[in-house]
Order: sequence, then structure tokens, then C-alpha cells
Amino acid sequence: MSPMRVVQLLAAAPADFRTSPVEQIDLTLTGIAGDRHAGATRLSDARTPWHARGTPIANTRHLSFVSVEECAELAALLGIPQVDAALLGANLLLEGFPELSFLPPATRLQFPSGATIFVTEQNAPCVHPARKLAEAHDQPRLAALFPKAAIGRRGLVGLVEREGQIRTGDAVRAIAPPGTVSRRQAVPAAALL
Amino acid sequence: MSPMRVVQLLAAAPADFRTSPVEQIDLTLTGIAGDRHAGATRLSDARTPWHARGTPIANTRHLSFVSVEECAELAALLGIPQVDAALLGANLLLEGFPELSFLPPATRLQFPSGATIFVTEQNAPCVHPARKLAEAHDQPRLAALFPKAAIGRRGLVGLVEREGQIRTGDAVRAIAPPGTVSRRQAVPAAALL
Repeated sequence: MSPMRVVQLLAAAPADFRTSPVEQIDLTLTGIAGDRHAGATRLSDARTPWHARGTPIANTRHLSFVSVEECAELAALLGIPQVDAALLGANLLLEGFPELSFLPPATRLQFPSGATIFVTEQNAPCVHPARKLAEAHDQPRLAALFPKAAIGRRGLVGLVEREGQIRTGDAVRAIAPPGTVSRRQAVPAAALL
Repeated sequence: MSPMRVVQLLAAAPADFRTSPVEQIDLTLTGIAGDRHAGATRLSDARTPWHARGTPIANTRHLSFVSVEECAELAALLGIPQVDAALLGANLLLEGFPELSFLPPATRLQFPSGATIFVTEQNAPCVHPARKLAEAHDQPRLAALFPKAAIGRRGLVGLVEREGQIRTGDAVRAIAPPGTVSRRQAVPAAALL
């Protein structure tokens, strides 16, 4: 397996869903400085239907990240040469994570500067990337194919746990949620008198 | 099974680990107003050994919550009549959650005011409650027994996703992480040409 590293960094201007490659990003405690998704709060949308749309809520989606391996699977399923992380609106393209989308929430990704991302959730489906892919490849069929193929390959979102810079080529350390115990590790209720 | 509701609310003064019962709490986007654990950031400690101790990090532990059912199991394992949520430093004591500690991160707990907690992690072991229990029951043995018995019964921590009040007796709605898919839901890689 490839070592875990940052292949590409991307940021989005406030007006566009697409991200553009940058050499480095500055993580602040409210997200990537200058990025569309930065902010201590965001407005509730279709992803959080348990709040009225437009309600201010904590921003637990500072940035999104996808893997080279999952993008390659996605491209093969869609029958296109590659899936550009920019069209997915991703901020980090990581290598060495063949099952990135299944890292559990509370996993941390840490970079050499000390910058650390706290994984909050899988990235939920969204119409933007399907449309952007269809446009970029001039293949309207991709808009319909993308949502199903992307299930389990759409990467993760997270919040910034610790500030710092991330640079292209950086090594990535994945830290499993440390306190997590499974039911079988608990002293069984049968031990009760 | 009991309906899911708030049995007790508790808050901690800045100087003490123990919490004290209150009739209602005000959730703000940085935690419970006036509570010891409120704040947009906290200093890294033994729970986050991947940061140097004392590093400012995002506070993903605004509040902690335990269940009546798990506290009853814990009391039985320890051989005491009951485990007081205040000695655990908990902020909410919930009923109707026999396996509260195993709700996955990214689960939301929502209350009638709209106030919403985003579950970030299981609550990790900590020496404070073991000592507080031993003192309160005048049984030094509890300090040694508690850590093992508490595995999988220590409840959860979370951050405030949406502001609002929580009152004693409130109903609780648990919302599973909506976007989460398992590996088997993904179109298999074998579908690749």
C-alpha cells in the first residue's frame, strides 16, 4: 500500500463549489483561511433536515477530503479516465487510504506541522459534483450515474482540531478514536449479582 | 423500554469537577453557559496525547452525558446503591438509553427547544470520578474498581450543534448519522470493468 500522504491541496473561492489546487493551506480553528466552507457556524441545509433550513448551527464541515484510491474506483465505475478532486469540491486529495470513506468519526488526521483534522462524518451526497463532472466531461449521463457510484467513495468531512499548515506531499498520520470501546470489552451485565 | 427523556441536568462551577443539579441549561455554540467545560477551545490533555500537553485545540467536549440504565449497571458492579451523575461530572442524565455509550459519533441528540448535541466521542476514563465515588461512599476500594466497571458505561461527550435550552423532563430525540453507509452498500469494486 502507498504511504499515507497529501497528493493535492485545494481551496474554494466563496462563489464557487469547485476547488482549485494550491500549494499549501492554513488550517485555522474555523477552517481553511479564505475557503468557502470556513466559519464557526454554517446555515442548516438539506444535510441537516432536523433543523429548519437556514438555522445557524455549528460548522462541523470545515473541510472535505477524498482519496486517490476511491477516486480511481469511482472513475472506473463511471467509465472516465479520472475523477478530478476539484470537481468534487474536495480540499485534500490523500493517497494511501483505499477505504478513506470508512474511517470512523472521531478519527484524527495529523500532519507534520501539528495541524490536525477531527473526522466528523462521511460526506453526504450532493448534486454539485454530479453536475460538475457531467459538464467537465461533456457527458450528461454522468449526472445520473454519479450518486450511486459515489456511495462509500465520497470521502469524509471534518473540523479543525488544531491549527497549522498543510503542504503538498506532507505525510499523514491517522489516529483511531482512542477511548472507543466495543460492547464486548465492557464487563458483562451477567457479572452483576 | 422507558421513553427517552432528560432525568437530571447538571452544571459544574469552574473550580470543581463535580456537577450540581440545575433545573435547566442554556446551550450556546461553545457549550453550557457558565460551565467548567464551555469554550471554543480547550488545552490538550491526557486524552489527546497526539498534541503536546497544553496546546490549544478545538473543544469537542462541550458537555458529557450518561444514562440511568448504565449508571444502574455500574452501581451493581460496584456494589453500591446508586451512582450519582454529579460524581461523574456529567451534565445530562438521560433515561431510555440502555446502551448510550455505544451510540456512534455524529449521532445527534435533539431537545424540544431545538437545542441539539453532536456526539463526538465516548467519554474516556479519568481519575476524577473514581476518587469522587470513593470519597462520597467512604469506600477506598471504589477508586480501584471504578475504571474497569466503567468501560462501556461512561457515556458520551459532544459539542453543541444548535443553541437552545434543555429542561428537566424534556423528551430526547436521537438522530442516527444520516449519510453513513457501510462497505456493503457501496457498488462493489468487482463491478469495475
